[in-house]
Amino acid sequence: MTRLTELAPRRAVIREVGLRDGLQSIATILPTAAKREWIQAAYAAGQREIEVGSFVPAKRLPQLADTAELVDFARSLPGLLVSVLVPNLRGAENAIASGADLMLVPLSASHAHSLANLRKTPGEVVAEVARIRAARDAAGSRTLIEGGVGTAFGCTIQGYVDPDEVLRLMQALLDAGADRVSLADTVGYADPAMVRSLFERASATAGERFWCGHFHDTRGLGLANVYAALEAGVTRFDACLAGIGGCPHAPGASGNVATEDLAFLLESMGFETGIDIGRLLALRARVAGWLTDETLHGTLWRAGLPKTFPASLADAATATETTGASA
Amino acid sequence: MTRLTELAPRRAVIREVGLRDGLQSIATILPTAAKREWIQAAYAAGQREIEVGSFVPAKRLPQLADTAELVDFARSLPGLLVSVLVPNLRGAENAIASGADLMLVPLSASHAHSLANLRKTPGEVVAEVARIRAARDAAGSRTLIEGGVGTAFGCTIQGYVDPDEVLRLMQALLDAGADRVSLADTVGYADPAMVRSLFERASATAGERFWCGHFHDTRGLGLANVYAALEAGVTRFDACLAGIGGCPHAPGASGNVATEDLAFLLESMGFETGIDIGRLLALRARVAGWLTDETLHGTLWRAGLPKTFPASLADAATATETTGASA
Repeated sequence: MTRLTELAPRRAVIREVGLRDGLQSIATILPTAAKREWIQAAYAAGQREIEVGSFVPAKRLPQLADTAELVDFARSLPGLLVSVLVPNLRGAENAIASGADLMLVPLSASHAHSLANLRKTPGEVVAEVARIRAARDAAGSRTLIEGGVGTAFGCTIQGYVDPDEVLRLMQALLDAGADRVSLADTVGYADPAMVRSLFERASATAGERFWCGHFHDTRGLGLANVYAALEAGVTRFDACLAGIGGCPHAPGASGNVATEDLAFLLESMGFETGIDIGRLLALRARVAGWLTDETLHGTLWRAGLPKTFPASLADAATATETTGASA
Repeated sequence: MTRLTELAPRRAVIREVGLRDGLQSIATILPTAAKREWIQAAYAAGQREIEVGSFVPAKRLPQLADTAELVDFARSLPGLLVSVLVPNLRGAENAIASGADLMLVPLSASHAHSLANLRKTPGEVVAEVARIRAARDAAGSRTLIEGGVGTAFGCTIQGYVDPDEVLRLMQALLDAGADRVSLADTVGYADPAMVRSLFERASATAGERFWCGHFHDTRGLGLANVYAALEAGVTRFDACLAGIGGCPHAPGASGNVATEDLAFLLESMGFETGIDIGRLLALRARVAGWLTDETLHGTLWRAGLPKTFPASLADAATATETTGASA
C-alpha cells in the first residue's frame, strides 16, 4: 500500500456545509428544530466541523434566518468547530457577536460571478476582509477569518478563470488579514489535473493557512477532484449530506460532494475522519425524509458499505505499520 | 500543468460495454434494431471499441441473444474493434466463427463469486482459457483473447480478495495463452489507494498486455478510481453509457462508470479519446428514451459541458507544447 504512506498526515476532516450551502439553494425551508436535530446527529456521528448557516439578511435567504440560534446551539457541543458564512462586515459583526469559531468570507475569482453573486468586485471583497479583520481584532474576538476563493476553476458566466489570478487573490486575502484560505470549484468545472496543479501551488503559497477544498459534483468529478487534492497534501474538505447544495447564481450547478461518499472515500483509503458512516447514513435517511420535494444525490446510500469495510481498515492500518517499520 | 505531462501517453480509450454489461443486468430487452442504432451512433460519436454482446445461451441471457448479428453489423464499421464476452469454450467457438476482434473471458478472483457467477473455480477458468487459446490457434483465427479478472478488489459474497491472488491469477491467464488481461472492480469495493497499488503491480507484471480497467460506480468512487489507474499508467477503460450495468450475482451492485462522465474526465484532463461528447450526450438521451423503465446514472448530462470546455482543451494543448519545448 505505497499510496497510503505517501498521503501523510493520516487524519482528514470533513466540514459539513449542508446546513448552509445545501439549504440555501433549495426551496424547502427546514424548521430550526430539524436543523438542531441534524447538527446533533452529525455531531453524534463524529463530525467536528459544521457550517451552520450564513449571516445574510433574512429577506435574502429566509432558509438561513435562524443562524444565530444555531450557532448558539452548536457551541454547546464540546469540541465542535462552528462555522458560518458572512458576505460582508455587517455579517461578520453578527458572527463575532454570535461567538462562531470561524467565519468564511466568500470571494469569487470570476469578476462576472463576483458581481452577480456578491455585488462586489474581487478587490472590493479583499478590502472588506481587511475591515472584517480590523473589527474582529478591535472586538478582541477569537473568531477565525477564512477567505474562500470560489469559481477557482472557471465560472458559468465568465468561463475561463486564470489560476494565477486565483492565487493572487488568495495571497491578497492573506495579506488583508484572513487567518485561513480555501479554494472552491463552485460550479463543477475542475478536473483532477487542474486540482492537483492549483492545490499544490496554493499549498506552497499559503502553507498551514491553506484550509479547505470545496468541490461540487456537477459533472461527476467531485470525488476524483478530492483525491487529486489529497495528493497535493490537502486533507480538509467541505461536503453536504446527500449532496444537496449548489449556487443560485451559477445556472446548472448541482450539489456539493456528498458527505457520506466522501467519508467512505477517506476511510477506505485509511484516513481517520472520526466519522461513523453507518450513523451518517441513518442521518441521511432522516434528512431525506425532511426534504421529500428535493433532488438528493450521493451513491453510497443505495449499496451501503462494502462487506470488507471494517476488515480493510484493519488491514490498511497493519500495512502502514509494517511499511513504516521497514522503511 | 505538471500533472498532464506526467500522464503519458496522451491517448486514452473508452471501450463501450453498455450493450453487454449494461443490458445484461436490466429487465428491458432492447430490440436488435435499437442496438444497431446505438452501435452506429457510438461509432459516429468517435467510439472505436465496443463490446456488443455475449456468447452465452439465449435461454440464460435473452437480452443478448442477437450477439452474432451485432458482431456482423459492427464489423462493417471501419476501424471499430469489436469485442464480445465468452464464458467458456463453446462461447469462444461462436466468437471465433463470428469474426469478433476480441473475446473477453471473465474470471472471478473471488472463489465464492466465481462459483456463483461462472459455476467454475478460478483454476477451471484458467484451464478453459488454455483450451480457448488452442481452439483459436487451431482455427487460424485472429480473435484476441482477453482474460478479465473480476472481483479484483473484493466481493459481496466472500468479502476480502487478496491482491496477491489477483496477480497470481492474472499471470496464470497470461501463461494459459491470454493475449490481454484486465482488472475489474465488479462490485464497487475499490478505492483510489487500492487501485493505484494493484494497477501499478499489474502493469509491471503484464506490461503491454495489461489492457483495461473496469470500474463500477456502486459507492461513488468510480471516476476517482479511474484517475488512480491513470496515474498507474493505464489508459483504457470500460464504461457504460448512462452508467447502466451491474452484476446479477453481486447484490447491491449498480452500474459501471458512465461513458459520458468518463469521456469528460479524460478530455478535460487533456487526454485524446476521439469522442465527441456532445454527440455522446445526444445518444444518451436516445438510449434513455428506450430504457424508460430503468434507473440510469451519470452526472454530466444534467449540467452539460463547461463553458470553458473547448478553450480549456486548447489551453492544455498549448501548455503541453510549451512544457515539452522547455523540458
